[in-house]
Amino acid sequence: MTTSSPFLPIKCGRVEEINTQEENLTKPMPNLHIMDPKLLQSMVYDALVWSSLHGLVVGDRNIQRSGKVPGVGMVHAPFALLPMSFPESHWRQACELAPIFNELVDRVSLDGEFLQDSLSRTKKVDAFTSRLLDIHSKMLQSNKKEEIRLGLNRSDYMLDEQTKLLLQIELNTVSSSFPGLSCLVSELHRSLLNQFKEQLGLDSGRIPGNASLSQFAEALAKAWKEYNNPRAVVMIVVQTEERNICFPQLCNTYDVSTIRKTLAEIDEQGVLLPDGTLLVGDHAIGVIYFRAGYTPNDYPSESEWRARYLMEQSSAIKCPSISYHLAGTKKIQQELAKPNVLERFLDNKDDIAKLRKCFAGLWSLDDSSIVKDAIERPEFYVMKPQREGGDPSSGNNIYGDDMRKALLRLQEEGTEENAAYILMQRIFPTIAPSLLMRDGICHKDHAISELGIYSAYLRNKESVIMNEHCGYLMRTKVSSSNEGGVAAGFAVLDSVYLT
Amino acid sequence: MTTSSPFLPIKCGRVEEINTQEENLTKPMPNLHIMDPKLLQSMVYDALVWSSLHGLVVGDRNIQRSGKVPGVGMVHAPFALLPMSFPESHWRQACELAPIFNELVDRVSLDGEFLQDSLSRTKKVDAFTSRLLDIHSKMLQSNKKEEIRLGLNRSDYMLDEQTKLLLQIELNTVSSSFPGLSCLVSELHRSLLNQFKEQLGLDSGRIPGNASLSQFAEALAKAWKEYNNPRAVVMIVVQTEERNICFPQLCNTYDVSTIRKTLAEIDEQGVLLPDGTLLVGDHAIGVIYFRAGYTPNDYPSESEWRARYLMEQSSAIKCPSISYHLAGTKKIQQELAKPNVLERFLDNKDDIAKLRKCFAGLWSLDDSSIVKDAIERPEFYVMKPQREGGDPSSGNNIYGDDMRKALLRLQEEGTEENAAYILMQRIFPTIAPSLLMRDGICHKDHAISELGIYSAYLRNKESVIMNEHCGYLMRTKVSSSNEGGVAAGFAVLDSVYLT
Repeated sequence: MTTSSPFLPIKCGRVEEINTQEENLTKPMPNLHIMDPKLLQSMVYDALVWSSLHGLVVGDRNIQRSGKVPGVGMVHAPFALLPMSFPESHWRQACELAPIFNELVDRVSLDGEFLQDSLSRTKKVDAFTSRLLDIHSKMLQSNKKEEIRLGLNRSDYMLDEQTKLLLQIELNTVSSSFPGLSCLVSELHRSLLNQFKEQLGLDSGRIPGNASLSQFAEALAKAWKEYNNPRAVVMIVVQTEERNICFPQLCNTYDVSTIRKTLAEIDEQGVLLPDGTLLVGDHAIGVIYFRAGYTPNDYPSESEWRARYLMEQSSAIKCPSISYHLAGTKKIQQELAKPNVLERFLDNKDDIAKLRKCFAGLWSLDDSSIVKDAIERPEFYVMKPQREGGDPSSGNNIYGDDMRKALLRLQEEGTEENAAYILMQRIFPTIAPSLLMRDGICHKDHAISELGIYSAYLRNKESVIMNEHCGYLMRTKVSSSNEGGVAAGFAVLDSVYLT
Repeated sequence: MTTSSPFLPIKCGRVEEINTQEENLTKPMPNLHIMDPKLLQSMVYDALVWSSLHGLVVGDRNIQRSGKVPGVGMVHAPFALLPMSFPESHWRQACELAPIFNELVDRVSLDGEFLQDSLSRTKKVDAFTSRLLDIHSKMLQSNKKEEIRLGLNRSDYMLDEQTKLLLQIELNTVSSSFPGLSCLVSELHRSLLNQFKEQLGLDSGRIPGNASLSQFAEALAKAWKEYNNPRAVVMIVVQTEERNICFPQLCNTYDVSTIRKTLAEIDEQGVLLPDGTLLVGDHAIGVIYFRAGYTPNDYPSESEWRARYLMEQSSAIKCPSISYHLAGTKKIQQELAKPNVLERFLDNKDDIAKLRKCFAGLWSLDDSSIVKDAIERPEFYVMKPQREGGDPSSGNNIYGDDMRKALLRLQEEGTEENAAYILMQRIFPTIAPSLLMRDGICHKDHAISELGIYSAYLRNKESVIMNEHCGYLMRTKVSSSNEGGVAAGFAVLDSVYLT
């Protein structure tokens, strides 16, 4: 389980030099598993009370009405009782990467040819990506330009235990979830560290501020302002069962109205005016924020695809546009990791070097020497479907013996199906004792963490209006469920304790 | 149902003059029952979302673990979708009364003889009050003085429709519940009024600020400071199944630690040191706040009574002390309403007049002419058990034909049992269309409201440190369940819209 990777990527775009970042573990977390039981009990109680008083709650999937009616059948969101330690230097590195990735996504989104070419083989085997590419093609044909572009992204990282490298897992350009809950967990942990200061001896000031929700709201409000129609609203595209609730501050702080619509409702109620204005019901739509639409499940019929196409044709600012959506796919991530590809989009050599440094090994399945190695040493690779799953814990990845068999089958069949996957270096993050809260119960276990950095990007025809990191999402899960860091497992919300 | 009282109290301590307060209903609420269904649906949705994001939640009694484990099985607290209109002049009157009632309770609490005498007949028929009086007697005998006295009270009122008089329902000196939730409902309503400003045309500035929770916390913190032992804690006496959570800001804002204990735990872990210090577990107790102990159900065995006695003997500041607890009983309320009794405790004639003006008719059951009238015209009276029920919606009151039968039976039997009750003038408050939210469902109904004004009082040997109104609790319920205003019914939390 605790195997570390002895492995250096060979044929990927990563810089060869392994410049191990200096360790700075001056104030480590105490071993949470040897905590006084009474103290633990008090902390658990106070944390649960805190969660219900501060809205750190989600709909309980065990209660039927919880998804349909807000305010009923609620339970605290799963959370770690205490923050996870994380080296400050890596933290800074992750924050510095955010605006560079924002810029990269924006540049890639403008290169329609690159997107179409890179995904051309995927198109044949992945019906979902194929539909997205069709809409993208139509936009290219009609020469539709997105002049105001809004990206609310999240780049996910793990810290490789042996090399001490911060390695990117994936970049999400669509529905980067949990910004609200992640802020609350940071607040909860700060509150607990203050309350149990004497007993824990930890400094709440070492938990970085986390304003992702308010900064996402600010970005949406600024985008709305750029759209420049005071009567327009922000439309949030939701799944039929929407459990996570977003951006009440748009109305309260920025006086911007929001409406929520499912894709089916948008198809039913949406009209495109000749000037490009999208009307849904009585509302002109200024900005569209997708909380749905990132998975094939969100498109059960042609109706949903019509809605997506309708929105894309409109002048509304889409977060994300089809181009941004495609730029965040794993296939594009893998293409960008190839030598000399970043140089196609970025000029600044420092920026390019910084991005390369965080790239894990990433390969297409038509790289036969890598496939051969992965069959021989499956423990050092993970096979990922190209399709975005939204929640990286959703467990679509393939590991170990399953991966070996899948690769062998693909080799044998010689079909195009291998274009539906990429191979990635398997990362072995630090394992630490952790206390995981779910359903009111505290589980002691050994856990690993994944750090997501939220970032916002907004520009108009003339210039960049916003390009910054906005906060973070720390997710911690039981390490026995670790199949490379992004497998299904008992993941809880966490925060960062800088060491 | 809408019968108004044609009734003037005859033999009670109320001033005879009916000085109808000027009507000032300049900006009435719209009729909520003829609201656009789409608008209503949006408001319901947003209100439910707001409730879960802001901690306007309670444990769902239908879910077993909800009472034992915080953070699980939560549901939004029942609330009115929009505030209830209330005349500004009556609102001001209620606020002005708060410090006078605080002072009155304090003075009454010092008059041990008055408490014992007034409750002497009640003692014979009410075992619960009898036990409280026993502890009170022992304190008198040992000449125990409470030099630092803390009262967190709530005086409840209804507005009589016909006479336009603000009439007191009761005064709570123990466990004045809901301060936290009531603040949240005011915030929710302000948020909705802002969000739907155009459609509703209501001014959120007309909802009075409600800081009851933070001011109660401030009072507890100040009391703790008066106790003057930096290592002492605030102990909250809780029921075994405590669903309402209180005063996290004690720790966060004032750096005062709190512990929660049941009466049984206090009996088990409590020790009284020779200097009067109460130790519970490892903690010296500076202030005791009772969230339990106001109903016989909280004393299932001798253990709980031992705990209450132990606490009363200690130097800890008790909120309430036994004296304060007794001063808040209905029998004392009725005694204070007798002619010339207020004069025993207060000097300021204006204050006395203000209090009298809000006294409803209150009588002992040995007033035979009143009992006769109540048997003949039961619709104008309500019969109340002397014992404090905590929640005034708990439905111990007797009305109509049941009351008539009960009074006849008591007359016939000629027992002492009549000392367990008082008679009160029945109040007929304004009935208004209302939207009541429970379990995620919006009920349209005609409703009545009861206004509770929270107040805090703190003094030491030398002087009064705090004496002010702190916020309010508006409760609204379906008028068909109105049996005089304090019966059981579908009560929801509400806020005040000043007209």
